[in-house]
Amino acid sequence: MQGEGSESTMTRRDLLRMIGLSAGGAVMYQAMSSLGFAAQSPYKGTPKLEGAPQGASVLILGAGLAGMVVAYELRKAGYKVSVLEYNARPGGRNWSLRGGDTYTELGGRTQHCQFDRGLYFNPGPWRIPYHHRGILDYCKKLGVPLEPFVQINHNAYVHNSNAFDGKPQRYRTINADYRGYTAELLAKSTQQGKLDTPLSKDDQAILLDSLRDWGALDKNYAYVSSPQTSNRRGFDKAPGGGLSGKPISSQPLQFHDVLSSHLWKGLTEGENYEFQTTLLQPVGGMGRIGEAFGRELHGVIRYNAKVTAIQQDEHGVSVTYEDSHHPGSTQKARADWCICTIPLSILSQLPINVGPAMAEAIAAVPYAGTVKVGLQFKRRFWEEDDDIFGGITATDLPINNISYPSCDFNSSGKGVLLGGYLWGLNAYEFTAMDPAERIRRTVEYGAQIHPQYKAEFDNGVAVAWHRSPFTLGCFAAWSDELRDKHYDNLCQIDGRIALAGEHASYLPAWQEGAVTSALDLIERLHQRVMAGGAV
Amino acid sequence: MQGEGSESTMTRRDLLRMIGLSAGGAVMYQAMSSLGFAAQSPYKGTPKLEGAPQGASVLILGAGLAGMVVAYELRKAGYKVSVLEYNARPGGRNWSLRGGDTYTELGGRTQHCQFDRGLYFNPGPWRIPYHHRGILDYCKKLGVPLEPFVQINHNAYVHNSNAFDGKPQRYRTINADYRGYTAELLAKSTQQGKLDTPLSKDDQAILLDSLRDWGALDKNYAYVSSPQTSNRRGFDKAPGGGLSGKPISSQPLQFHDVLSSHLWKGLTEGENYEFQTTLLQPVGGMGRIGEAFGRELHGVIRYNAKVTAIQQDEHGVSVTYEDSHHPGSTQKARADWCICTIPLSILSQLPINVGPAMAEAIAAVPYAGTVKVGLQFKRRFWEEDDDIFGGITATDLPINNISYPSCDFNSSGKGVLLGGYLWGLNAYEFTAMDPAERIRRTVEYGAQIHPQYKAEFDNGVAVAWHRSPFTLGCFAAWSDELRDKHYDNLCQIDGRIALAGEHASYLPAWQEGAVTSALDLIERLHQRVMAGGAV
Repeated sequence: MQGEGSESTMTRRDLLRMIGLSAGGAVMYQAMSSLGFAAQSPYKGTPKLEGAPQGASVLILGAGLAGMVVAYELRKAGYKVSVLEYNARPGGRNWSLRGGDTYTELGGRTQHCQFDRGLYFNPGPWRIPYHHRGILDYCKKLGVPLEPFVQINHNAYVHNSNAFDGKPQRYRTINADYRGYTAELLAKSTQQGKLDTPLSKDDQAILLDSLRDWGALDKNYAYVSSPQTSNRRGFDKAPGGGLSGKPISSQPLQFHDVLSSHLWKGLTEGENYEFQTTLLQPVGGMGRIGEAFGRELHGVIRYNAKVTAIQQDEHGVSVTYEDSHHPGSTQKARADWCICTIPLSILSQLPINVGPAMAEAIAAVPYAGTVKVGLQFKRRFWEEDDDIFGGITATDLPINNISYPSCDFNSSGKGVLLGGYLWGLNAYEFTAMDPAERIRRTVEYGAQIHPQYKAEFDNGVAVAWHRSPFTLGCFAAWSDELRDKHYDNLCQIDGRIALAGEHASYLPAWQEGAVTSALDLIERLHQRVMAGGAV
Repeated sequence: MQGEGSESTMTRRDLLRMIGLSAGGAVMYQAMSSLGFAAQSPYKGTPKLEGAPQGASVLILGAGLAGMVVAYELRKAGYKVSVLEYNARPGGRNWSLRGGDTYTELGGRTQHCQFDRGLYFNPGPWRIPYHHRGILDYCKKLGVPLEPFVQINHNAYVHNSNAFDGKPQRYRTINADYRGYTAELLAKSTQQGKLDTPLSKDDQAILLDSLRDWGALDKNYAYVSSPQTSNRRGFDKAPGGGLSGKPISSQPLQFHDVLSSHLWKGLTEGENYEFQTTLLQPVGGMGRIGEAFGRELHGVIRYNAKVTAIQQDEHGVSVTYEDSHHPGSTQKARADWCICTIPLSILSQLPINVGPAMAEAIAAVPYAGTVKVGLQFKRRFWEEDDDIFGGITATDLPINNISYPSCDFNSSGKGVLLGGYLWGLNAYEFTAMDPAERIRRTVEYGAQIHPQYKAEFDNGVAVAWHRSPFTLGCFAAWSDELRDKHYDNLCQIDGRIALAGEHASYLPAWQEGAVTSALDLIERLHQRVMAGGAV
């Protein structure tokens, strides 16, 4: 998430601020709309590219989403396209592991996934925000069905091993109590005339009404045990039917305990633009998108092709690669243009003759390492015992998250959950372990939240992205400083070579970054080709 | 939602309050757990009933969920069960209308549903909360697959025709701005030492940290235009890829405009226990549950049977009914016991010899009338144009809600949404109209929010529950006063007759009320049978 717009838009924004100050926000909204400012997404459909010069060719490196979007669109525009891909499958980080799959990480350790039929785990991306129109539109075009991904589950847990004796708390409880107590405090200040605000008396009266609603406060603006607050935080005994159906209200926690637990840190995730409802996921695993692209591009992608050098001259680009199963078997491919989607973590180690600005950019960006662990359990105890249907439990333990599957709800039999999604130092520590040890630790930590883990654990897989041979990391970890210095240089077309991928976007780690970077690039490349006729 | 527990639990609660006051909430939580107080649901699985006396028979009136739960469980316990049902189908209010279905309401107007294959509309219940374990367990037993029902969608609208010139606002915008401005106000009061609170200085420091997080405040605890606040409320230009990917932050509304719009009233629905994530729905329509029960009880249910009288004597119960297609064709059924699930709105008009307490209860409870309108559109413009995938738009217009389908996301072709869910006076007004007029008005109102309505509308159905011949209303509208006076009398077993249904529960209008009232009753009935041997 970066800063404000350019100087020219700042001027326009200043105008809007002035309107806002003099005439109120509703007028400003209209002004914003009429200035075309209230738009949501920079994505306006795929660019309409037509009339590629006869025989113009593009060599694409990498059959991840960026590379396949480029191949799909440029082929449609009339270019001769071919793709070199290191893996034996399409998709790159768009990837689902299923029973029968094997995965060999850097260092040679191979895991054999033993999940039951129909169950899967996404080592890479796992959710699609509603505003990621680029990837959503490709799902539509390619016929990949979607279903909701549950991010916030009021009945999942927030957990701090140092609070409440290490007992996990329901999200709904902490959420209701934090909201209620803060609303009560603000209502008190408002009633006592202590607000430091230009709000009129009328607005303050509306504020009080709204706080009662927002915080489930009683008629005196207090947050206390009542049917109303239980209707937020949950009941001691929920309402039911017949003579035994009378509900019993619950008692709010004390505000001191809520504050000092720091569990309020788990309350804002679902408010963030990228995690707001409605999130979506492909039915059957995120990898369904890459697989569908792969089918669409059948015959265009050469698999098991490990690029070893990229060399451009004034007429085109030559790429040297070897069959990844037969190291040393050097082969060459050549085209008029090359679009390279290889992650910078790997590209920075390859010979490539681009100018110094792009070369520096390629070398500059570090890659974040994360670890994700998929665990299969003998039964869906989180649903059966704990009433948790999808969603995420947040914890201060190294596993960070437990994410319950957003599919097969309420079904009998086994289930696979995301047992850990590790970041930072914890990810480094887990990356250094043997996969079996990563899994063992994940089960051990998770059992602090779900004691059922020990009896119900079946098998697991653990992907440490720094050991992934096709990415050497999870995503480009741009800082604001690095972006200021290198981002535009990374995205420029350098002679006959250009880069695309999540690393060439303001959406690092998101598939939408890969898709929109590809679309942005091919529009510019096509313009250059059409202008220069440089075939 | 009713009041506190009984006197004996009050005593226990007083003890808990004392612990809470002297030693802090964390200690209280432990005490609550050890006293068995932190339980969530009164439902602990279906009662294990065994050993019904040889030949003991139960006649069940109504094949809605309550009646079918009773039939399913009592048959398993060894009773001879039979069910009389007015409709030609099982389910009662558990019901989905699909293309080819017809529905004739009181007054004789018949609607022919013209939805495309695979599309449906639920005139009755449409969502299942995660804590409604009774109905969830029957879905599991009967093999009814479930999927998430999206209630809150940050990108759906909140709409007040008198605010913002009648322009709908995105939920995320109002939500972020209300949250941000109230957090800012409370942070200011805290900083200025103006809080009326026993919170320690340390707690106040944590409170300030938490408010920054909660409200997306800047380092000075102000809610202002920034990438951080845009990451809650949305961007003017969202982040993307390549050279065109730089985001532009949005400008918050003015707090006065948010408050005076009263759109904050739409922000708490998803916080309520019954609408919290994760809500679920059966794949293919809520009616799948009733249909599955109907298959399970094949041969047990007699359809098109309109009950006209219920008469008990010391040995059993006789029920008179007629074939609803052949009025006047009187028939009789008799059993040792009768469990009647006929809505009170209808039962109160039938001769039934129960004691005065139950008779008064039956007569006392009014029924709420609601109207639901399903609209088919030629394309899913809410997804394609407005990025709304499922969820609900709330409006002050008579239609009250627009609910977008929580299935077939991102698919091409037509879609059915809930165009209106009317309550109170609006429902009465719509009930008086011809169905075609209800639909016309619903389209007209909805077009104020989605201008696409006019071009894209295809066809619709409108169910006014006060005109439903099998319920004469939507659900039992208990007041606290009525419940105090009549509820227990309604739920007692009166001789050989007992009642079940949502009307005999603390969960009016919810299927879980029907299920748990049935389970509560059959346990008591079985005990009475086994104790009395009164066959």
